[in-house]
Amino acid sequence: MLEDLKKRVCTLNKRLPSSGLVILTWGNVSARDPKTGLVVIKPSGVAFDSLQPADMVVVDLDGKVIEGNLMPSTDTPTHLEIYKAYPQINGIVHTHSTYAVAWAQAQKPIPCLGTTHADSFKGEIRITNFLPPKAYSDYEKKTGEAIVSAFKEFDPLDCPAVLVRSHGPFTFGRTPEAALENSLILEKVAQMAFISETLCQDNVPAVSKDLLKKHYERKHGESAYYGQRKLPK
Amino acid sequence: MLEDLKKRVCTLNKRLPSSGLVILTWGNVSARDPKTGLVVIKPSGVAFDSLQPADMVVVDLDGKVIEGNLMPSTDTPTHLEIYKAYPQINGIVHTHSTYAVAWAQAQKPIPCLGTTHADSFKGEIRITNFLPPKAYSDYEKKTGEAIVSAFKEFDPLDCPAVLVRSHGPFTFGRTPEAALENSLILEKVAQMAFISETLCQDNVPAVSKDLLKKHYERKHGESAYYGQRKLPK
Amino acid sequence: MLEDLKKRVCTLNKRLPSSGLVILTWGNVSARDPKTGLVVIKPSGVAFDSLQPADMVVVDLDGKVIEGNLMPSTDTPTHLEIYKAYPQINGIVHTHSTYAVAWAQAQKPIPCLGTTHADSFKGEIRITNFLPPKAYSDYEKKTGEAIVSAFKEFDPLDCPAVLVRSHGPFTFGRTPEAALENSLILEKVAQMAFISETLCQDNVPAVSKDLLKKHYERKHGESAYYGQRKLPK
Amino acid sequence: MLEDLKKRVCTLNKRLPSSGLVILTWGNVSARDPKTGLVVIKPSGVAFDSLQPADMVVVDLDGKVIEGNLMPSTDTPTHLEIYKAYPQINGIVHTHSTYAVAWAQAQKPIPCLGTTHADSFKGEIRITNFLPPKAYSDYEKKTGEAIVSAFKEFDPLDCPAVLVRSHGPFTFGRTPEAALENSLILEKVAQMAFISETLCQDNVPAVSKDLLKKHYERKHGESAYYGQRKLPK
Repeated sequence: MLEDLKKRVCTLNKRLPSSGLVILTWGNVSARDPKTGLVVIKPSGVAFDSLQPADMVVVDLDGKVIEGNLMPSTDTPTHLEIYKAYPQINGIVHTHSTYAVAWAQAQKPIPCLGTTHADSFKGEIRITNFLPPKAYSDYEKKTGEAIVSAFKEFDPLDCPAVLVRSHGPFTFGRTPEAALENSLILEKVAQMAFISETLCQDNVPAVSKDLLKKHYERKHGESAYYGQRKLPK
Repeated sequence: MLEDLKKRVCTLNKRLPSSGLVILTWGNVSARDPKTGLVVIKPSGVAFDSLQPADMVVVDLDGKVIEGNLMPSTDTPTHLEIYKAYPQINGIVHTHSTYAVAWAQAQKPIPCLGTTHADSFKGEIRITNFLPPKAYSDYEKKTGEAIVSAFKEFDPLDCPAVLVRSHGPFTFGRTPEAALENSLILEKVAQMAFISETLCQDNVPAVSKDLLKKHYERKHGESAYYGQRKLPK
Repeated sequence: MLEDLKKRVCTLNKRLPSSGLVILTWGNVSARDPKTGLVVIKPSGVAFDSLQPADMVVVDLDGKVIEGNLMPSTDTPTHLEIYKAYPQINGIVHTHSTYAVAWAQAQKPIPCLGTTHADSFKGEIRITNFLPPKAYSDYEKKTGEAIVSAFKEFDPLDCPAVLVRSHGPFTFGRTPEAALENSLILEKVAQMAFISETLCQDNVPAVSKDLLKKHYERKHGESAYYGQRKLPK
Repeated sequence: MLEDLKKRVCTLNKRLPSSGLVILTWGNVSARDPKTGLVVIKPSGVAFDSLQPADMVVVDLDGKVIEGNLMPSTDTPTHLEIYKAYPQINGIVHTHSTYAVAWAQAQKPIPCLGTTHADSFKGEIRITNFLPPKAYSDYEKKTGEAIVSAFKEFDPLDCPAVLVRSHGPFTFGRTPEAALENSLILEKVAQMAFISETLCQDNVPAVSKDLLKKHYERKHGESAYYGQRKLPK
């Protein structure tokens, strides 16, 4: 079942190491099939090199394995919480990319310091609250809940990335391809913000709300004019 | 029309990601044809991998599409303002290269700290003034005007790079090939300056005017002696 | 003798430069054969490119060359002290990886700042004590003793890495493959900690003992659930 | 003439960009032929890609071109001053490698912070004195004199690298291959020292003279025991 989606999810998982976002077996990509509502996710702890579409695991939103011979990613309950909360999200990527993790370890949100950030993320990259030890018995699910809490009323697709405190980033998209693209942008933005902060000894002013809105809407707003639409007459 | 120039501009655009200056669809290269005055530029939001010479868009200095089936880069009006102001410039490159963007986000010009910088840029890399929100209705054209304002009486080919505040770098050249080379040098110089500033906790003295002039003129002055001319007798 | 192990050790040594952990002839990988107790190690100062399995040197725990035409790595006595102290260790890797060396030069242990660290290392990465000049006549052996002293009652396989003060890292494993994997993780963790510390001007709080334990045991504890075991029923 | 040496010097020049030490046409490698005393050097401003052994320029110690159709590197007089002062040096490499240049721009010598440094360089990497503008009429020769002054009575082969203030590094060797290796080590050491200094907010103590001597002599002293000599009996 879902052979096409398994192929896409497999390909995207293999891009995690080839694009420099992770080493070893770190990170995972999942996708939700909009028709069935089932989720396809990477198996836990398998080397990316040997990953095949048939290794992908299909689970339902309760985490029950519907198809697959391998255990799903340990982080599956985190992905599922996000899918349950946001029907508009059909792709999720978790990485341990260097600069995004370093911000998560510094326990700081990534401020929006320029248009590279504003082109993709409408505001700072949020960081989840501290997870109390009593939540550890259901750690991955609670991590998902903490992510959902970080957005409250805000549409996560308007700022499709989040840092799990002391851990690392998750990114989202309408498709898993978009979620992976957001992981690449997040890591670049995290690196640029690190350099800017270091240059200014931590005192860079975030960009104005006006510039943030202008750039975000140039690409994503109702009157967006970036990319290919129609030629003006 | 302008088939040769379209081929050159296409090749140079593809070098943006392969040389590490951008990821995804970021950045753009344009060139002006000295004979017709027409400008060849990358289409907006197209993947570099699939870019073909026939995809390049030909526009006139008013931004009218003269040839091409795709929308030109969103940044086209910025390029055109620069071409209109400076007849000596026939190539422009815009990137989101990491260190140059970080300086733009830090809202600081890049000081000339050594001969690597002075060999190519006669002085600090300027940063444009803040663009007020009322300018946003014509954002890309106003960005071009801000770049022109940053140079005033100064010949931009003597320091062929500029940072757009909170955004990123544009570089120039007599040819688009020279403009791309200047983007590569700018990014390297921005990285070196970051490291030097961090080593000195922000107190590196800029090089003396004498050393700046000596190195710039060794390569670009009337008595330049770098590169291949004639053997001394 | 030990032809299979020599092949493995040769392959792992060649991965040191190809994975970016060292340049030139730096670093070395060794393995202990659990049956014979003999140690296979890289020869001293040989280029990685030309390294062949037959070049590997077999030594006993006293450092006597049992087989091989080349001199064993200068660091052999350091490896042997570790093998003698810890029967559970059968693989050791020494590198000069950039960030781990920089922490060793800064003469600071690497604090555990996040889950990337906690997933593999149960606590901070220890740094050895200062070695007094009177120890220099038996420098490499004394270095091994200093490493053993750094762990005291602690099982080094629970935190399989150490920094030799002013020098660089050694990592361990039940196998040489695991030891190399730990070198890769250590370098990434050292880089992330550097960025986090710089972002926080040296004031990042280490992760709580609870989070450290949760993540370490999720992967390595008795009830570990990371990776492939059995499907839940 | 000197066809073999021209081939070696050509190959080494091409390694400058491929090993990441320079971009574009930056940097140059030269070698002295011990028999004739003639120097083979890269031509000025030629792309590395197209460089052929026949393009190498042969000059005598006075800078007279003995063979070659191209202008020698602009930096030739700097190389010649070094060859004239030190008969033991037969290879010189000049690069604009990122971290070494950043230290030169910071106008600081690179302190010896660890054994990676001490293994190759017996002490800090010196930085030349400020060159007064009146020296600019003979800029490249005076730069060479400033390098020689930086060593005074010290044998430059014991610490075969130097930073030209506000400019960049030169490295030396008994052969041009050794000089290139020293450029690679210098850049790595410059990067490690930057990270250590940043971690310690500029207060890393340099390694003790004892440790410096121990490591340097382990590899280069009279009783050196690193690398392949004879098996102990």
